[in-house]
Amino acid sequence: MIQFEEALQIVLSHASLPETENTAMSRSVGRILAEDVISDMDMPPFDKSAMDGYACRRSDLNNKLEVLEVIAAGQIPAYEIGANQCSKVMTGAMIPKGADCVIMVEHTRQTANGQVEFTAPKTAGNICYTGEDVKAGEPVLPKGLLIRPQHIAVMASIGCVNPKVFRKAKVGILSTGDELVEPHIYPGAGKIRNSNAWQLMAQAEAMHAEAYYFGIAPDDETHSLARIRKAMDGCDVILLTGGISMGDYDFVPAVLHQAGFEFHFKSLAVQPGRPTLFGTTAEGKYCFGLPGNPVSSFNQFELLVKPLLYKMMGHDFRPEILRLPLAVDFRRKKSVRLSFIPVSLNDKGEATPVEYHGSAHIHALTQAYGLMSVPIGITEIKKGELADVRPV
Amino acid sequence: MIQFEEALQIVLSHASLPETENTAMSRSVGRILAEDVISDMDMPPFDKSAMDGYACRRSDLNNKLEVLEVIAAGQIPAYEIGANQCSKVMTGAMIPKGADCVIMVEHTRQTANGQVEFTAPKTAGNICYTGEDVKAGEPVLPKGLLIRPQHIAVMASIGCVNPKVFRKAKVGILSTGDELVEPHIYPGAGKIRNSNAWQLMAQAEAMHAEAYYFGIAPDDETHSLARIRKAMDGCDVILLTGGISMGDYDFVPAVLHQAGFEFHFKSLAVQPGRPTLFGTTAEGKYCFGLPGNPVSSFNQFELLVKPLLYKMMGHDFRPEILRLPLAVDFRRKKSVRLSFIPVSLNDKGEATPVEYHGSAHIHALTQAYGLMSVPIGITEIKKGELADVRPV
Repeated sequence: MIQFEEALQIVLSHASLPETENTAMSRSVGRILAEDVISDMDMPPFDKSAMDGYACRRSDLNNKLEVLEVIAAGQIPAYEIGANQCSKVMTGAMIPKGADCVIMVEHTRQTANGQVEFTAPKTAGNICYTGEDVKAGEPVLPKGLLIRPQHIAVMASIGCVNPKVFRKAKVGILSTGDELVEPHIYPGAGKIRNSNAWQLMAQAEAMHAEAYYFGIAPDDETHSLARIRKAMDGCDVILLTGGISMGDYDFVPAVLHQAGFEFHFKSLAVQPGRPTLFGTTAEGKYCFGLPGNPVSSFNQFELLVKPLLYKMMGHDFRPEILRLPLAVDFRRKKSVRLSFIPVSLNDKGEATPVEYHGSAHIHALTQAYGLMSVPIGITEIKKGELADVRPV
Repeated sequence: MIQFEEALQIVLSHASLPETENTAMSRSVGRILAEDVISDMDMPPFDKSAMDGYACRRSDLNNKLEVLEVIAAGQIPAYEIGANQCSKVMTGAMIPKGADCVIMVEHTRQTANGQVEFTAPKTAGNICYTGEDVKAGEPVLPKGLLIRPQHIAVMASIGCVNPKVFRKAKVGILSTGDELVEPHIYPGAGKIRNSNAWQLMAQAEAMHAEAYYFGIAPDDETHSLARIRKAMDGCDVILLTGGISMGDYDFVPAVLHQAGFEFHFKSLAVQPGRPTLFGTTAEGKYCFGLPGNPVSSFNQFELLVKPLLYKMMGHDFRPEILRLPLAVDFRRKKSVRLSFIPVSLNDKGEATPVEYHGSAHIHALTQAYGLMSVPIGITEIKKGELADVRPV
């Protein structure tokens, strides 16, 4: 049994470098950039007005100004500004030559003969200068970035319409256990529905990996081995749930070994989720044997599988760790394992552990905002104290 | 100019009730449940073992026990447990009749003649009882829930393979401004690329609305009106960016009015994002006129459009408001508007305002974990003090 931090380091140390491909900017949210995105132009690309107003010379602010023209955004000014002259400019319009400030429309008055007077005591420049945000050739988004909607505006603005991204990791998912039936079937005596595999499929897809389902492997070594080999054929990572603890029918480790996997750990000092296995093959395939109950399986995906998949897709995943005050006292009896407790979030930004009957109790996760980690050695966190919460 | 909270109430008060449809469970992440999901069975569906061990009678714990059979998960026990008898049970297996506890394998020893002895001082019951988590007929997930991966396990476990969800809202997006060119074009003098519309497309799709793009409307009333009418034809909500402030060419409000929209507000006491317009038609269409710069447009989508779209899809969206300590002092000069400042999150869970040149500076958002709200009247938040942060 090893500590979580050690397990995570082992998993990440095996992640191999991914391949790349191009994708349409409009479909790139959730993908990982495979190269720095470089600006092909200065931003702003020209001196532009930050306001609707009049572009003029600061030295003329005490004088009446002749209006030469009206410059809309997108137009090229026809005239240079000379002494006691100005041009009306719209927000985003190009500043005419000769002007060094823009006075706001609200700070002006028109004289009887159509001239313009500045009426405020002072003004800011109100000009956004060429290249003030970004210069041509500068990187605007870094390699390894997980693309979110706000990055799309940056890509669009500098013309990165088909960004180079890392290929999606391909994940093959199998369940084990003769007690399982698929969700569309009403379970007979002694049976339950397969919920883990579908949850894992959803978890993998939510992080933009490609998830493939290989069904419920029978509790039979020959058929399980065939199923696993089929999954290995097209996938980078195999996730199996169930069959890895100490029961007489838990032959998953043996079958994985036959399929070529060497194991790096089989058990973790984490609660829930102790029986978690990680292996690799010489050909660069990965496998996780995940606990058979859905809360543990969910946690281990978040804690270990997600960081591996992200690293395989070129992203250095750092889960957000929020330090949130507890709304109630928390106590636990044993403290020999690192615990991850589902917590909800109230209107005041406080975390509350949700009612939780143990690792088979999937309903606890349904109200969870995140997982609170309780370190080894800690049995109590008092109301108002800060706890580490990882949103899920 | 109205306050943000009032604007939000106005927007939400106009959201109409959505239609429903069924979708495959495996494609339902991000959708909104249109009815309570009811369990079709008790969970667990039978008394089951929480451990690999021996099911027996608690009154026999001091005696040697005869092993009747091995019961795997999914099997039906053949024998009832009598005095000084037990059956080996795997985790998840059905508890045989007559047994009232399971002793862990690790707490037993086999005698020479194949009997089993309990070696620990005491044991928990280690039985999960029928219906202890959920009873048949009970709701397990509520109408209005935004479906996440952890909910898939619950749906799978009770056979909800085609959940009823609310229809996706259809959002039509247009940009305005003769200065704009599409992202694949290198802008000529005075022009910039259209980044807002593509960011809005990504924001709408990220929340599982259906986004449709209607291009850059020319700065010309007739053609703009035709473009808006086309968007209204198939979409529930129209988003326009640009053209709504005070410039001579900002005719968007007039064109929207011609298209049948009545306005509920045109300006907000929010920074950035003051020029934000909201309107509705008698036929139940909605429009937002959003600021022409990308940071303001991003914010207003998060602050107003997202809550409307979610409510139209049946979900009572409450943004997570996190109370996070500031890593540095924050100061601002004016405090007449509610401000939303992009902040990053450090390893200690502290928020830091990101460098920010103003509302056209899209690069500020690229490093943002969330938006810190600074209320009206507040000019300073000191290092270590808690600020309200909304993740984006």
